[in-house]
Amino acid sequence: MNTLVNLPKTKRGQATLDRICSSAEQLFFKKGYHATSINDITYKAKVAPGTFYIYFTDKVSVYKYLLISYSHAIRMNIAKDVKGVHSRKEAERIGLKSFLTFIKEHPHVYNIIWESLYIDKKLFIEYYTEFAQYYIEHIQRAQAEGQMRDHDPEVVAYLLMGVSNFIGLNWIMFKETTEFDDVVDKVIKALDEGLF
Amino acid sequence: MNTLVNLPKTKRGQATLDRICSSAEQLFFKKGYHATSINDITYKAKVAPGTFYIYFTDKVSVYKYLLISYSHAIRMNIAKDVKGVHSRKEAERIGLKSFLTFIKEHPHVYNIIWESLYIDKKLFIEYYTEFAQYYIEHIQRAQAEGQMRDHDPEVVAYLLMGVSNFIGLNWIMFKETTEFDDVVDKVIKALDEGLF
Repeated sequence: MNTLVNLPKTKRGQATLDRICSSAEQLFFKKGYHATSINDITYKAKVAPGTFYIYFTDKVSVYKYLLISYSHAIRMNIAKDVKGVHSRKEAERIGLKSFLTFIKEHPHVYNIIWESLYIDKKLFIEYYTEFAQYYIEHIQRAQAEGQMRDHDPEVVAYLLMGVSNFIGLNWIMFKETTEFDDVVDKVIKALDEGLF
Repeated sequence: MNTLVNLPKTKRGQATLDRICSSAEQLFFKKGYHATSINDITYKAKVAPGTFYIYFTDKVSVYKYLLISYSHAIRMNIAKDVKGVHSRKEAERIGLKSFLTFIKEHPHVYNIIWESLYIDKKLFIEYYTEFAQYYIEHIQRAQAEGQMRDHDPEVVAYLLMGVSNFIGLNWIMFKETTEFDDVVDKVIKALDEGLF
């Protein structure tokens, strides 16, 4: 991450960096990455134009930094919520709930992550393959402990990522559901019992 | 569809419309929707600029027409391939293979469909909710025939759409796999037996 951002050493510097990131996030969501300039970001963040360059070398760096932050935040939220849960089925249930809560609270996340496909396809690929790698390790551990059936861990990882993302699309983005415990339970039941 | 496109009555007109659509498709993929002008499309299609307006009123119409064509082509391909298959499990296996083959042959499809999120979110929502509606009807029929377990059909539809899309991302877009029968079998096995 050090090559992407020059991390501040003071609280005040951190507050400035946070403001720059939050402004970039809102602008990328609203206007899109390509239509947003560094000037737009610093203007919205109420900092001098040059201040941007204390932290980032260019626009794509702040975008990459946001992507990494999301991936990190999603994984940390899930890890925190499933802590102490010993059944993998329960961990997946809580993990899905945690993911849906995150995207409900950050409705711009889909737009910003998927825009990577149009900014630099490598970023999109990296985002999902890294997420999958983390997931695969958890699946392998669960399989070794007899908590999951012995399906191909990579297949299971993408299967579960697809499920979370598309359940999120319909219930969070399309229907703006605020209460999704019931949907989560239905998903886990289907994945547990099988479809046929 | 009639409000989107003025369909030609001659073979020659159809060939011109096809060339306009194919040029638009390639440009939207390469440069993105916003950076593509109607002039770019007609220039690439080797037709006079005014010819565009014989078929479409504006740029978003040709985009919408492409979206509808994809949705239609994906469903028709699947319907053709699963014809005469009576087990829903086999139909899902063949359907997934058919979908992966389609996106392998049309690698720009993800980009163009997902760009709707940035062009007009309503188009994105419409695309997936219409696809889901079609899927839900098939799931309900399979459930009535005892071919599928009685899970919530809407949950199952988005679950399966998520699975197809993310399996496609990893094996077609990321890894560019040309032989995916094995992956498809593993997916169906996991969905059949359950994960836990």
